[in-house]
Formats: sequence, C-alpha cells, structure tokens
Amino acid sequence: MTAPSERLAGDLPIVDAEAAAEIVPDDATVAVSGFGSVGNPKAVPSALARAAESGRDLSLSIVSGGSTGEQIDTQLIEADAMARRYPFQGRSTSRKAINDRRVAFQDTHIARLGESVELGTFVDADVAIIEAVAVEPGRLVPSTSIGHTPSYIAAADEVIVEVNESQPIELAEVHDVFRPGLPPHRGPIPLSAPGERIGDPWVEFDDSKLRGVVLTDDPDTPYSFREPTETDQRIADNFASFMAQEMERNPALSETIRLQFGVGSMGNALMGALSSFETGGRPLEYYGEVIQDGMLDLLEDGTFRDASATSLALSEDGQARLFENIERYDDEIVLRPADISNRAELIDRFGVVAVNSGVEIDIYGNVNSTHVNGTRMLNGIGGSGDFNRNGVVSVTALPSTAAGGDISRVRPAVTHVDHTEHDISVIVTEHGVADLRGLSPVERAQEIITECAHPDYRDRLNDYLDHASEEAGHTPHDLDVAYSWLD
Amino acid sequence: MTAPSERLAGDLPIVDAEAAAEIVPDDATVAVSGFGSVGNPKAVPSALARAAESGRDLSLSIVSGGSTGEQIDTQLIEADAMARRYPFQGRSTSRKAINDRRVAFQDTHIARLGESVELGTFVDADVAIIEAVAVEPGRLVPSTSIGHTPSYIAAADEVIVEVNESQPIELAEVHDVFRPGLPPHRGPIPLSAPGERIGDPWVEFDDSKLRGVVLTDDPDTPYSFREPTETDQRIADNFASFMAQEMERNPALSETIRLQFGVGSMGNALMGALSSFETGGRPLEYYGEVIQDGMLDLLEDGTFRDASATSLALSEDGQARLFENIERYDDEIVLRPADISNRAELIDRFGVVAVNSGVEIDIYGNVNSTHVNGTRMLNGIGGSGDFNRNGVVSVTALPSTAAGGDISRVRPAVTHVDHTEHDISVIVTEHGVADLRGLSPVERAQEIITECAHPDYRDRLNDYLDHASEEAGHTPHDLDVAYSWLD
Repeated sequence: MTAPSERLAGDLPIVDAEAAAEIVPDDATVAVSGFGSVGNPKAVPSALARAAESGRDLSLSIVSGGSTGEQIDTQLIEADAMARRYPFQGRSTSRKAINDRRVAFQDTHIARLGESVELGTFVDADVAIIEAVAVEPGRLVPSTSIGHTPSYIAAADEVIVEVNESQPIELAEVHDVFRPGLPPHRGPIPLSAPGERIGDPWVEFDDSKLRGVVLTDDPDTPYSFREPTETDQRIADNFASFMAQEMERNPALSETIRLQFGVGSMGNALMGALSSFETGGRPLEYYGEVIQDGMLDLLEDGTFRDASATSLALSEDGQARLFENIERYDDEIVLRPADISNRAELIDRFGVVAVNSGVEIDIYGNVNSTHVNGTRMLNGIGGSGDFNRNGVVSVTALPSTAAGGDISRVRPAVTHVDHTEHDISVIVTEHGVADLRGLSPVERAQEIITECAHPDYRDRLNDYLDHASEEAGHTPHDLDVAYSWLD
Repeated sequence: MTAPSERLAGDLPIVDAEAAAEIVPDDATVAVSGFGSVGNPKAVPSALARAAESGRDLSLSIVSGGSTGEQIDTQLIEADAMARRYPFQGRSTSRKAINDRRVAFQDTHIARLGESVELGTFVDADVAIIEAVAVEPGRLVPSTSIGHTPSYIAAADEVIVEVNESQPIELAEVHDVFRPGLPPHRGPIPLSAPGERIGDPWVEFDDSKLRGVVLTDDPDTPYSFREPTETDQRIADNFASFMAQEMERNPALSETIRLQFGVGSMGNALMGALSSFETGGRPLEYYGEVIQDGMLDLLEDGTFRDASATSLALSEDGQARLFENIERYDDEIVLRPADISNRAELIDRFGVVAVNSGVEIDIYGNVNSTHVNGTRMLNGIGGSGDFNRNGVVSVTALPSTAAGGDISRVRPAVTHVDHTEHDISVIVTEHGVADLRGLSPVERAQEIITECAHPDYRDRLNDYLDHASEEAGHTPHDLDVAYSWLD
C-alpha cells in the first residue's frame, strides 16, 4: 500500500477533544499510542485531565507501548484521573504517583504485551486513543512511534484517532506495519534483515470502531539527553574495545554487526562512540526499540547502513533535524510495531549485540534495572529484557558508582532482579570489561570485582566474597551482610 | 532421508572404549550428548573415569544438553576427572561437587546454549562424545535424547560415537533433526505445529572429524519418579480448574491447547491430572523439552494427540514400555534438537501454556528454581526460563511449604531469582491459584498470600507486607526483615 497524500480522507467522525473525551467511560481501560515519550495522543488526554479537574470522576487504566508525553504521565495524574498504568513510564509525576501507590503499575516486558492485550489476558481494552499523521475509514498512519498501536486498535471496542498536524505526513515513509497474528494462527515472521520491509505504512482496523477523529497540532514532549560525561565516554571506549575483540572471535559478527542500545543518555553516548569504530568493512545495522539522536549522526556519516526501531525517541533538536529532511533518512530508518522490533524470534535470528544499562549489578552478574533500594520504581524494564535474553551477546553498561562515588553500583546482591545471571554475557563500566561467559559464580565475582568495580570498593567486595566463601555453596552468600550495604 | 536399517555402515574407525578415551586430551572441553538423564555416552566416560582412578591426570570440562547419567555426573566426579560442568545436572554427586566448589558450574538457559558452543563464545569444544543408535560416515542417529548433539558435533574438532545396542534402532522413527543455522545466516524455523516434522532422523557431520566408534550396550540410568503425593494431587486439581477457566477466556486456547511441563515428579503428576481434563473437544498437544512417563498414558488414551520434546526422560518402566512398542508411538512422539524444542520463536508461535515448578516464590511473583537459601545449587534452571518467558501463559506450580510444613515456600523475598516478576503469569499451590496478570506488586502480594500461601504463614506474610508498606515504594520491602526468615 502506498503512503497517503492527505491527512484526512473519506467520511470521518470529526469531533473536538472535549467531545472525544466524553466517549471515554469514567473507569475505562484506555490503550494509547506512544513509545519513547513520543507519538502519544495529546488533545484527548488533556481534555480528560481538564474534565477531571472540573469534577468528572475519572479512574482510568492507561496502557501504552512505552513511555508517553506529559499529557498522559503528568496531566492525567495531577488531575487524579489515573488509577492504573502499564507497562513503562518515565516522568517524575508518574514515578512519584507509582511509588506513593496512588497509581497501580505493573512493570512488563514490551515484546509480548500487545499480544496479551489482544488476547484480553492482561487488560481488557475499552478504548484506544491513537495519534496518527493521516487517517481514513479503516486505516491510519502512526506518527513518531508505532509501539503496540496495531494490537491496541484490534483489542479495543472503540477507537479515537488524533491527527496531529505538527507531525509530518512523510513519516508514513518510515513505517513498516506487519502483523504476526495470534496463536494458534501465527506463522514465521518473514523478515530477513533489520533494514528490510515486509508490511505497510498503514495500520488497518475495523472502521465500525472509529468513534472520533480529533485534529491537533501539539508537538511531542520528548526526552532531553544530557551531554556525555567523562565516565560515559570511558564506558563507551571500553565497550568499543570489547567489540573490537568480539568482532574477531565471534562468527555471528563476521559479516555484519547488528546492535541494539537501551533508551537513555547512556545508550545515546554509547552509540556516539561508534562513529570512530573500525569494523573491518563489516556493515553496522541497528535493530532496537528506539532511535535516538546519536543514530542520526551515525546514519548520516555512513557508520550505520540501516536502523530499525518502534520509536523515533529524538530530542526536540533531533526531531527538528529529522522532520526537516525526512527523505534523507526514509530509506535507512524503519519503524515497526513493538511486537516486531522487540521480538525474540528476530533478535535471535539477526544475532543482535544487545547493550543496555542498569541501576546496579551484583558480583554474580544479576542486574537491577528498575528499583532503587529494591522498592522505588524508576521507569520500568522496558525492552531491556527482550534484548538481553535474546541477543547473541548481552552487554550491561553502567558507571561503577552513583551519588558522586558514595554508592557502589557493584554490590554483593542486587536489591531487585530484572535480568538474571543467566541472561547477561558481559559487564562494562568505566574501569573495564568483565566477560562472564562460561564462568562459575565465584569466577564471575572475581572478574566483576577486578575489572568493573570502582577501586575504592574492591577490597570491601572481596572481603564479602571471602567471608561468604567460608561456607559451602555454588553461589556464596551471607544475605544479612549483603543487604547491610543498604544501611 | 529414511531411517537406517543397520547400526553400522561404511568404513568406520571402530575402537574400544579405552582407546577412545585416549583420544580425549587431559584438559579437554568435552561436549556430550544427553538430556533428561538419558542418551548420554556411557562407555567412554566410564573409561575416562577408570583411567583417572588409575592415575591419569584429567581435568575435563563437560558440556551436555541437560542432565546425564551416572557415568558422567557420578563416575567422572568421583574419579576427580571433572573440573567444569555445563549447563545442568541432577545427581547427588555432581550437586555436592558443585556446592563444594570442586567443580565449576555455570547454570545456563538451554535454548541458545548450542548456538553459543557452535560460535565458541561459551566454551571451545575439543571433542564431542555422542551416543547413537546407528552411525555411518558423515551421519548418525541419536538415541533417547537429541539435546544439543547437532551443535556439539558441529563445534568440536573431533567426534567419538558410542553406538548403544541396548537402545532400539527404531528410535530413528521419532527423531526430527532440523538445523536453524547461525546468525547472520539464520532464517525462520518452518515449523507450524508441535507434531509436524521438518527434518531428518539423522544428524549430519563432517566425516573427517570422526575419530572413533565404540560399541556399547549399557542402558540409560534414568530418573525414577515418586508417586504423586496428596499435595501434588491437590496442586494438579487446582491447575486443572485454572485451565478450565483459561480455556474459555483466552482466545489462544480456543482451538488447540499446547502445554509444556517441567522435568520432575511434579511435572509428571500435573500431566497425570490431565487424563480427566475436559477440553470441549479441543485437541491437546505437548511442546516441551522432556517426555515423561505420564505422557505415554496421555498419548495412549488419546488425551494428547502429539508430543514434541528433546528427550525421552522416562523411568526404567517407561523406557521398557516405549521400547517394546515404539511403532505405537512413533507417529505421535517427535524428538527435536534442544534449540528447536526450547526455541523462543516456536514457544511463542504455538501459544504454549508453560507449567514449571520452583523451590520458592516471593509475594511479588519472583521465582527461585535453583538455589537453596540462595547459595546451594540443586540442578539448574534448565529450560524453565525458555518456557516461562515465551509461553502465552506461564504457570509456576509448587507446594506451599517444604520440610513437612516447617518452611513456607512463599517468602517475602526469594533468596535467588531465576524467573522475575516480569515472567510469571500464575502461581498454583495446593491451596489455590493466584493470577498475577495486570496486578501491581501490592496486589500480587495480597493475591499470593491469600490464594497460595499455607494458612499457617498467611498472618506472618501479611505482617511483613503491612510493615514494608509503611514506607513509600512501588514494591514495599524491608530487606533486613525479609531475609531474617532464613534464620
């Protein structure tokens, strides 16, 4: 199917945001577009927040693809209109509400969430509110992210579309919407390379569900990335050294190198480090969930030949750069539904090197990527588990300390486990690289303490390991002592 | 390719076990066949153990598909001939050696281990020792398990084959060997149903690697299953009640029901409970890693129409029953390589309901399936992570207590995490069913305590939750108190 030339076509139920908000039941489960803080609906959530401020008693459950903008994760919460939130968020207001337990949150892997919503086993979606750059009866073109939009439209009883004129209609050129079907009618995904296209620019849907089309021009409220710190740069250098070795010894990387980087400033900094990376002529391809600003540079200078994701998680500057010159990128960038971008089948098939961060690691290689002190939620696991589990090599990259050096991010035991020792191949900090493959727990501990921990904490970590090793056990631990590090 | 009619054909380097053992370097990394305690080589490992007893200084690294027989996990260890062991074991001798840290062990997911060995990123395999029911130059037919045999033969520099005349040559009829290729030359796996066949009865290999063929007739030393206890039966009944409901509400189960059960007596007992399970005409199909005795009954009485696995992990009685009457089962049973049986792509495609056990769970839904008190290894994670992560529904079934009721298996925090809160849908104990889908941590805790904990421990668990909830936090915890349960 070709991309649209007009934003609106055919007979559409055009309404204003207030009227659309009236369609949403007070206690609805609302499935929204949005991933990487972009591409979420804006006018209708804002109208719902205003209605709640004016006395409407709303208790909404909101399920998105990933993180969304301020209209959802700030305004709806400040208006006390949100009871539940899935599967990821990244704003201070939503974070506080979740930690105060005013909003119930389940932190969930991305790859198979769309399926769970379609099957009705996770939530039962009443209404889908979707941002698009174009719509006509029975199909729409998503905007700056695709996320789980196809699943959510299929699952919901009613659909509201926001057509956002601040998002260029040419975004259709980067979309590739392929649907995997539901079990037991699911076949192989016929994608053979990260840059290939197998679908359409449109998401198709049952037109009888379309209850409202709202015209908007509110821009996204995207991430702002911090400049890389000296520590980031040292981590990136260590990662590049690791890759230079791995490229020579791992046959999966002998012809092409496929990479994924986690969302955030660390991922963006690591990407930046690749601009001077010598691959011996092997093409680099990105197969991840978000395209961040660093990737635009790498596509422009020819370092990467293709980039596949489910979200253009760019900063305002990055968006401006892309929007002014989409045709420059539309051959190289592909946006897919999140159940394709994050799919185990494809990450495995392509031999992706997965690079994600964490809050803390332990000496045995378990990773906490969500909870401060085991209790306070940051953003959520997002797609890190999808990529860490299925990557041909799984790298956790993080600074060795937090709080200006007062806290070691390398601990005897993590306070919450998001990625187990079974899922992590390699740890990288600013001090070095620990390759954990084939090592026993004690060997992993020695490698992590020696190569990755901050020198100021190595003695204390070694003392823990020695003390715990006085008793028998495959994985030496004295958990009382392990958690005394919290005090 | 058709199945063989003769055990040996063509020009083969027939040697005795002692001569074959001489081929193995003293410090070799040896990749062996074997999964579910069956199908492992026997004569050559025994000969290596005898050589070590007689003074040969062996320091072997042994990588298998899964658990193996006494020749490897008892004799080689008693002879002090094994330095390292991957990825799973299940015998008292190996367990003790690992916990005494005399044998270094890395506990690893099954699905992608074969790939890691082929790529040389996990271990560098020197010799493969493979049990077969038939061999000719360039190909062999595995015996009672396939495991990672195709990958190990491809990875190793030298290959030794044991042709075991106690294993019926008709086992060729159940094998379906398909190879997925390595990245970046890996395509979709063209399997569309659990009972389908897409490969050959043979494993092909580079004939120039074949250094020895040893004739043996040592039987497997398989599992012995205990009779189901009353608690097992109540867990099975609760599981069946859950399935009766899930079948009606989950569209993925509307036409066929695909199931996997973990290895062991609990899995065997749960399978047994399905003989009276009313599916409303939907066929049942098994897509797991092992076929246990209970499955033979279910195939015989027509409850299941197909069963796919990588190992015939039967008891001695089960083996006798199968071996005397293989043609009865060879249409319905398919054995596949472990990287097909456990593959994320296929578990996801088929919509498998995954049912696995655990040592302990916590109130938030994290599962420990490997470590007693966080330190002492039992067997390993095996394939439970492959199925829990990728199943359309993931059930953890376990008794609510251990040690005759003195220990609650439901704890404030598990002492080791193998399956995170992100991977588990449902918990089943003899007291009830906790459906965790879509619930926040505090809601999950309430559900697990109320439905699954033993009544004697509910007050204490609720007290912990109340105490921890005095502080803010998405996942309330006081880790000092949580681990005081160990004292």
